Amino acid sequence: MSEDPLVVFQPSGKRGRFSVGTPILDCARKLGVDIDSVCGGRGICGRCQVNVGDGEFDKFGIISRPENLTPFSAPEEKYQERRGLLIGRRLSCHAQLDGDIVIDVPPESQVHKQVVRKRAEVRDIKMDPAIRLHYVEVEEPDMHKPDGDLERLRRALAEQWDIRDLEEIDIRSLQKLQKALREGDWKVTVAVHRGQRITAIWPGFHDRAYGLAFDIGTTTVAVHLCDLASGDVLASDGIMNPQIRFGEDLMSRVSYIMMNPGSEVEITKTIRDGINNLIRRVRTEAGVEKDEILNATFVGNPVMHHLLLGIDPVELGGAPFALATNTGMTLWATELEITETSPDARVYILPCIAGHVGADTAGVVLSEAPHISDEMTLIVDVGTNAEIILGNRERLLAASSPTGPAFEGAQISCGQRAAPGAIERVRIDPQTLDPRFKVIGCDLWSDDPAFADTIAATGVTGICGSGIIEVLAEMYLCGLLTTDGIINGALSDKTHRIQQDNRTYRYLLHVGEVEIAIYQNDVRAIQLAKAALYAGARLLMDKMEIENVEKIVLAGAFGSHIDTKYAMILGMIPDCDLTKVYAAGNAAGTGARIALLNQQARDDIQKIVRQIEKIETAVEPKFQDHFIDAMAIPHKTASSPNLEKVVTLPEPAEPIPADDDQGRSGRRRRRQRR
Amino acid sequence: MSEDPLVVFQPSGKRGRFSVGTPILDCARKLGVDIDSVCGGRGICGRCQVNVGDGEFDKFGIISRPENLTPFSAPEEKYQERRGLLIGRRLSCHAQLDGDIVIDVPPESQVHKQVVRKRAEVRDIKMDPAIRLHYVEVEEPDMHKPDGDLERLRRALAEQWDIRDLEEIDIRSLQKLQKALREGDWKVTVAVHRGQRITAIWPGFHDRAYGLAFDIGTTTVAVHLCDLASGDVLASDGIMNPQIRFGEDLMSRVSYIMMNPGSEVEITKTIRDGINNLIRRVRTEAGVEKDEILNATFVGNPVMHHLLLGIDPVELGGAPFALATNTGMTLWATELEITETSPDARVYILPCIAGHVGADTAGVVLSEAPHISDEMTLIVDVGTNAEIILGNRERLLAASSPTGPAFEGAQISCGQRAAPGAIERVRIDPQTLDPRFKVIGCDLWSDDPAFADTIAATGVTGICGSGIIEVLAEMYLCGLLTTDGIINGALSDKTHRIQQDNRTYRYLLHVGEVEIAIYQNDVRAIQLAKAALYAGARLLMDKMEIENVEKIVLAGAFGSHIDTKYAMILGMIPDCDLTKVYAAGNAAGTGARIALLNQQARDDIQKIVRQIEKIETAVEPKFQDHFIDAMAIPHKTASSPNLEKVVTLPEPAEPIPADDDQGRSGRRRRRQRR
Repeated sequence: MSEDPLVVFQPSGKRGRFSVGTPILDCARKLGVDIDSVCGGRGICGRCQVNVGDGEFDKFGIISRPENLTPFSAPEEKYQERRGLLIGRRLSCHAQLDGDIVIDVPPESQVHKQVVRKRAEVRDIKMDPAIRLHYVEVEEPDMHKPDGDLERLRRALAEQWDIRDLEEIDIRSLQKLQKALREGDWKVTVAVHRGQRITAIWPGFHDRAYGLAFDIGTTTVAVHLCDLASGDVLASDGIMNPQIRFGEDLMSRVSYIMMNPGSEVEITKTIRDGINNLIRRVRTEAGVEKDEILNATFVGNPVMHHLLLGIDPVELGGAPFALATNTGMTLWATELEITETSPDARVYILPCIAGHVGADTAGVVLSEAPHISDEMTLIVDVGTNAEIILGNRERLLAASSPTGPAFEGAQISCGQRAAPGAIERVRIDPQTLDPRFKVIGCDLWSDDPAFADTIAATGVTGICGSGIIEVLAEMYLCGLLTTDGIINGALSDKTHRIQQDNRTYRYLLHVGEVEIAIYQNDVRAIQLAKAALYAGARLLMDKMEIENVEKIVLAGAFGSHIDTKYAMILGMIPDCDLTKVYAAGNAAGTGARIALLNQQARDDIQKIVRQIEKIETAVEPKFQDHFIDAMAIPHKTASSPNLEKVVTLPEPAEPIPADDDQGRSGRRRRRQRR
Repeated sequence: MSEDPLVVFQPSGKRGRFSVGTPILDCARKLGVDIDSVCGGRGICGRCQVNVGDGEFDKFGIISRPENLTPFSAPEEKYQERRGLLIGRRLSCHAQLDGDIVIDVPPESQVHKQVVRKRAEVRDIKMDPAIRLHYVEVEEPDMHKPDGDLERLRRALAEQWDIRDLEEIDIRSLQKLQKALREGDWKVTVAVHRGQRITAIWPGFHDRAYGLAFDIGTTTVAVHLCDLASGDVLASDGIMNPQIRFGEDLMSRVSYIMMNPGSEVEITKTIRDGINNLIRRVRTEAGVEKDEILNATFVGNPVMHHLLLGIDPVELGGAPFALATNTGMTLWATELEITETSPDARVYILPCIAGHVGADTAGVVLSEAPHISDEMTLIVDVGTNAEIILGNRERLLAASSPTGPAFEGAQISCGQRAAPGAIERVRIDPQTLDPRFKVIGCDLWSDDPAFADTIAATGVTGICGSGIIEVLAEMYLCGLLTTDGIINGALSDKTHRIQQDNRTYRYLLHVGEVEIAIYQNDVRAIQLAKAALYAGARLLMDKMEIENVEKIVLAGAFGSHIDTKYAMILGMIPDCDLTKVYAAGNAAGTGARIALLNQQARDDIQKIVRQIEKIETAVEPKFQDHFIDAMAIPHKTASSPNLEKVVTLPEPAEPIPADDDQGRSGRRRRRQRR
């Protein structure tokens, strides 16, 4: 008695015996092997391609040969001609079993394929988009069975795609339905949102569906245009947030609205116009039609979130900082006046976490996934405020800390945004106390003989956030700066670079077209910022009742540019094994992309947001204590065993009396959030 | 040991013992007694008013006294001053139990009150609107509990109103949320659609919510503006369907679109403009604000249904008459470009049943409820086509029959629409063969001496549908018309009113400014129409395998005007006990009103529509046979035992040879639907 042939799928290892003539796609379906298909097994879409094993597979005890499948079918020939098919590839919907076989499902043929991320320490994105395309063959109408075209389409979706929860259809698609069915000879492709609602329809076969992941920052708006089948990013672009004309930072925009009631309408229109412009740009770049953009996701801080939705953000401008909502929302593109996508594109806006912790932080959580981590993870997203998340799979805490814009180069005498000409790296010779530095846009250190020529075009124009961190840390390591943050005037004897400036001192970094120096006030500004950041983290550690964190993630552009060692020397972040400190880049934007490509992530983040314990730094008395202790460099009371493994910290010198006024104002002043 | 006081609610008879001090509303809630409240027991809305029994109630063995309730409370005093309270009335939320009491809940204080209909044979409408208002007190925000305002509102709705399935909120309401909460001092009223979604919000207490029930007819558009709490109709109005400029009847509008592709957009806009005009009129009449109109329902035949939705109706113009959808739909007012309601008003469109049997017929089914009737009921809705429903709680059949517009006075030599000046009633003296008649707008018969003076203003201008039915039936009863529908020229000897007209005869009805006569072609037109109607009904009776129906409902304006006896003499409808033949008026419009006031009816009708068996007369060979048999007056083969109880039908005379051309064209011609 001969047995049915055995088919083994790789890499899953799932296997089973099926009768001769069974299409490979059917075998896969029955075994629960994940193979994609838009056309539903009609040899049109080519999404179900597989590789055929050739040779002996001892592990399975079978010999797999290409001829153990039925010969190339007509639809495969046609697909081969039309779109090309790699050697050894078959369309699994048309290749039928004719003997034992090992089938290798390449990653791109899986529905739930993984979108690989560049960073080794984070998990890949599993494809499971909210919008999926389905090609269906619909029964023709019959006077004896007077069901509507929609009802027959609905039945076809249930029978051919097992979509049984379909609720309704967007009116615009209903308006197109009858013509599409007839034009496509009763074959159409529909886009279905979350298995529930038809949001687009095309006659015949259509396999282009795209989505947008937006990060609406206070300063910049960034977008990725993604293929909703492959997860590939086809175009990325960014613009300055056009709301800037109503105020540089959040607080000034909120103030503008307070002073000009009703102006939120105009400010909302401004961002929506900007979004439309940006979509037009990426759409043009990638050659994508409006009607093929079917989904979009948005992250942003609470004020950006509210303004995008057309909600007056004034409540976020003062205690108790009440959000209008902290639930994720799904809207129509038209409801947000988005005109550069399909009008029926669905927009998902990630939930805000608290009045100061926005949907951008929700995006960071999705990206960095502390909620599934065993390690006690501290995530800081440094912008004008710092959003801080602490926790692991057991428990998550969140807070926002008012760092102010010093880390971005604002409020610093020679500070500037990170741009060509800005000093970004600094080293100070502990003997001569002379600095050398690197400038954005130039690979050479400033002590390189070729430096002056190379830099001539831009010049050295200022110092950006990462440069400030490094120069202060280096000054501290060389004794130019005391642990109290005083520029050590006693060293003016030893180096001309320490110069008196009124009643304090400055450190001269560079003399060129402009003179770049670090002033006592700059040190104070950074001290205030880093103390706020540290105190926020420390407060969460208190709440968590821990003394150490196992992993630190620095999110945001700032986190990508600073050297984490210097951040720790300065005492911005708690002590941690430096090999476990990562820069995550625009993690908020990555979170928006995850929510775009994986619908489950939307439900997940909503649940996580509910579970996160929100700590309001403004009403925590201990925050003030931590803040004052953290003014010291690196910190007044905390130890840094991990840091001391990699650098030698100076012994605390005899305290130098601070200028009274400065010291008091610096320490006591509780700044407003920006 | 003293027992807790007994409270008995009337008319339900529900009773229970509760401790002294329990508010009557709480007793009612616990006993499942239906008492309304918008304010949630805060003494504001006055919806929970009850009457207090005074005297001995032997049946319950108690003495009920007003003083067995706590004295008039401050909120009751305030309500009394503000809105007035009838003697003996209390607010059940503030009157507390202090002894045995009988409480009478007046109908207007019940949530699920019955809206009484004028017609005795139909059930009342049970109030259960899709939109309900809820007044809630929302917790203030707290920095320690950073839930959004929406989430606290949601919690309040769950706690205070047991609304636990709330999904989302319309973006426009979310935009208003924070200001409304603060303006209302954390008290707001929200409109909730089907317990699931907030669609409107007002600061503080608000108790005005209205809805619209639309009947979009081919010729006229009618609307009722209803109070969604009481069910009262506050204003009703109608306009000519402005689409008439694209064609008088459905078929000519569809043809217009076929000849002018894309013109459906304009035709859709035309009806939507008309709807907006009509809303403006009823709104102004009733003094209702746009934003208080929160719901609307629509019925209409398939072509009107599709054009309202912006769907090209060309598929309905030819076999197989495919509907775009036969599912009921809920949309936003904005999606239908309705601008005279709240933009977030929800529009519910009843489902169509088949390509020729529309949402108007679904409305008729809701109104006449054959699906819950034991009696085998025939419902005919006569317009340009006749929609026919046959069945009872066991089984329902539906068909459409192409009667053409003859019943509406079109295609009749002296025919006109029912309007002042039109003959609507006719009696013929069997001896003299002279007629007397009544004219719309005049209460006198034409043989009244005062008739000529009374009618002078309008004159006698023509004959309308009901007049034609009566004159033909009377002519038949007097032998002026044979059972084959031939005007009996032999009687020209006996009366000057029978006059030769080419090769046929005419009957002179009236000589005035215009001469009004019945021509042989008029008889043919009515024969064709009535044969189509009868054949449709008969076909359904075949399918149902019955010989008799137990009840006949004539829906539509035409059904209200004709004398059912004459309709039966002429053989328009099958034989039936005349006391069981009812005119239902605009039953389709009533169905729209039921769907507006009772959300369950929407789910019901969707189920019923799926269960109704649709019979397509065009493809049923037996329809032709029935049609030919039904050309005779009253009918060639069917007997009329019920009719013969009330009138004496003439013996069939010797057949008079019909004019060949006429007879053939009349019998063989299968008309297009209009």
